[in-house]
Amino acid sequence: MITSNQNSKIKLVRSLMGRAKERREAGMFVVEGVRLVEEAVKGDWRLETVLYDGSLSERGKSQVESLKSKGVEVEEISTDLMKSLSETETPQGILAILQFSQLPITNYLNFILTPDQIRDPGNLGTLLRSAAATGVQAVLIPPETTDAFAPKVLRAGMGAHFRVPIREMGWEEISEVCRLSSLQVLVADMDGKSCWESDLRQPLALIVGGEAEGASEQARKLANEQISIPMAGNVESLNAGVAGSVLMFEVVRQRK
Amino acid sequence: MITSNQNSKIKLVRSLMGRAKERREAGMFVVEGVRLVEEAVKGDWRLETVLYDGSLSERGKSQVESLKSKGVEVEEISTDLMKSLSETETPQGILAILQFSQLPITNYLNFILTPDQIRDPGNLGTLLRSAAATGVQAVLIPPETTDAFAPKVLRAGMGAHFRVPIREMGWEEISEVCRLSSLQVLVADMDGKSCWESDLRQPLALIVGGEAEGASEQARKLANEQISIPMAGNVESLNAGVAGSVLMFEVVRQRK
Repeated sequence: MITSNQNSKIKLVRSLMGRAKERREAGMFVVEGVRLVEEAVKGDWRLETVLYDGSLSERGKSQVESLKSKGVEVEEISTDLMKSLSETETPQGILAILQFSQLPITNYLNFILTPDQIRDPGNLGTLLRSAAATGVQAVLIPPETTDAFAPKVLRAGMGAHFRVPIREMGWEEISEVCRLSSLQVLVADMDGKSCWESDLRQPLALIVGGEAEGASEQARKLANEQISIPMAGNVESLNAGVAGSVLMFEVVRQRK
Repeated sequence: MITSNQNSKIKLVRSLMGRAKERREAGMFVVEGVRLVEEAVKGDWRLETVLYDGSLSERGKSQVESLKSKGVEVEEISTDLMKSLSETETPQGILAILQFSQLPITNYLNFILTPDQIRDPGNLGTLLRSAAATGVQAVLIPPETTDAFAPKVLRAGMGAHFRVPIREMGWEEISEVCRLSSLQVLVADMDGKSCWESDLRQPLALIVGGEAEGASEQARKLANEQISIPMAGNVESLNAGVAGSVLMFEVVRQRK
């Protein structure tokens, strides 16, 4: 059983749960909890190491046994260590180091999402979760948005990371993807045309800006059209995760 | 300037930012930040006391001056005290103790929301914010849902508390409101009829359940119909704030 803070695996987990730079350099990230580990296994993601502690549920324990039998490196750690690593108040007692892998992107793109200047990890996770629920084919993440593989984003994403292809890209590359697939580029903006009056059946890229600053200059340059969600009274804005989700489901509704 | 943790106002703020019981007994709650204080003033809510510290922005300082000129009790406190009181990492330097007041509810109800078993304050705040944005006429909160006037709910609500009537009610009373206004009661459920195929133009009460347990037994008993948001792939659920928001905006779309 690992009990030392100085153990190399513990140090690795800690660094991977920290800055995006560490995750990118190592090519790895960390997921926490029985459900996310389960989704990773189901999706054939490569598990580097799994750590658990004595507080793990029965379901988690049988997961650990099954991982061991598959030859995954599994180690028990002390409950104090687990608590110190976990981002949640009540840790589920299991976390896994995963290698990044890129889900394939279809050649026939007709629905992509670009979360632009989204700084809040919870909002980005919500957008990813709704992207998975609306059949978005790829999420293209520009440099100004927070890292999609940070622990809080993974938690709010509820497994979306294992279902929807996610790519970090510069704006030029995003523009190239849209051009190659002849996508209309729509940016969410409160002064835009009502989403209910806009034709969302055409192949499209949806750009959703952050709450503080909205969409970036580059996003606006790329966009063919602005679309809005009509709002009552004097309400000025919605939560960015909600606004993007309402628009994604409106795309699905129009296409059904 | 107040510098002591033992000052009676500081103790009052601390207790009001804690448990719902303290807020109910005192008939008061606390909002934080320039924007929320502004909305409270605009909406003619009764300000008991305003506390600020030296870190306050220019906009905040002119707010403080204008409050003083209106006869509101305003006190400067030390920056350390403000930091210890604030729920945010970067406090805006102002908070206000407000007296509860009940926004009037129209007699002609055709759109109410009931967040059921919502335990996460962020999700409840998101639902309230979207309720304000969709013209929901009243939010009726059953006992199992977290307190709507907790600091995190107020923050996520972004002023919705000053725009939409919110009432805590038992299920019998909620049922009575629905009966008196002949509201159809719709509960969000993944096995329900597609929201896009349901007629949402009729006067209705929308019940949105929590993520963990869904809607309660009592909610299901009251409901005339279950409605769902069709989802892609194997995705099982949405964030509760998102699910409720998508449904509320679908009501607006159908009625426009």
